[in-house]
Amino acid sequence: MENKKIDINKKLKKFKDQWSPKVVAEMNDYQVKLAKISGEFIWHKHDTTDELFYIIKGNMKIIFKDSTVDLSEGEMYIVPKGVDHKPIAEKECHIMLIEPKGILNTGELNNELTANLDEWV
Amino acid sequence: MENKKIDINKKLKKFKDQWSPKVVAEMNDYQVKLAKISGEFIWHKHDTTDELFYIIKGNMKIIFKDSTVDLSEGEMYIVPKGVDHKPIAEKECHIMLIEPKGILNTGELNNELTANLDEWV
Repeated sequence: MENKKIDINKKLKKFKDQWSPKVVAEMNDYQVKLAKISGEFIWHKHDTTDELFYIIKGNMKIIFKDSTVDLSEGEMYIVPKGVDHKPIAEKECHIMLIEPKGILNTGELNNELTANLDEWV
Repeated sequence: MENKKIDINKKLKKFKDQWSPKVVAEMNDYQVKLAKISGEFIWHKHDTTDELFYIIKGNMKIIFKDSTVDLSEGEMYIVPKGVDHKPIAEKECHIMLIEPKGILNTGELNNELTANLDEWV
């Protein structure tokens, strides 16, 4: 069982690309993903699911239509399903995401920012 | 939206009791819980679900029938459903748990160690 443990900081050293969540674990039909983000992402929403953000290192903002949430290391936020949001990080920020399998990072959109699903590190 | 963010370290300061997971967030039909553990828990299993452990502070072990996993700050482990396990911490350890709503900490057992469900901090 020892080889199945997941060292989050070691996993973060295994990739450099930004806005491209990597799967590190599965729990039932959910996936734990790590992502490095910097700059502005696009407005999007997930019509079928809430999305858990947890900040491992750095700071980010989640912009909503009517407000902004500032998040720092050790803070968590659940973006409710169907709610438009736009993640932003002034400097590179490392985050953990938890959501059901099969959820695209760009929500209902599929464009050049859409990351591959099921890319593990 | 700002008041819905969850500061994990602030939440951990809000309770002292051990082996009594507190809910801090819900994502779909899943709950994020925090727990302080010290000493030995009992053998148990969860027949219907995997269970996510993430170490916030300190060290713990998860004992399985045929092996032991040592976990430190920043490490994660998914205990598969149906697998007997026994959590142990030599000194107080702070952990995050993620599992579906309604899961008892003692698994299929219900005894004096069974914590209240849906106790939020």
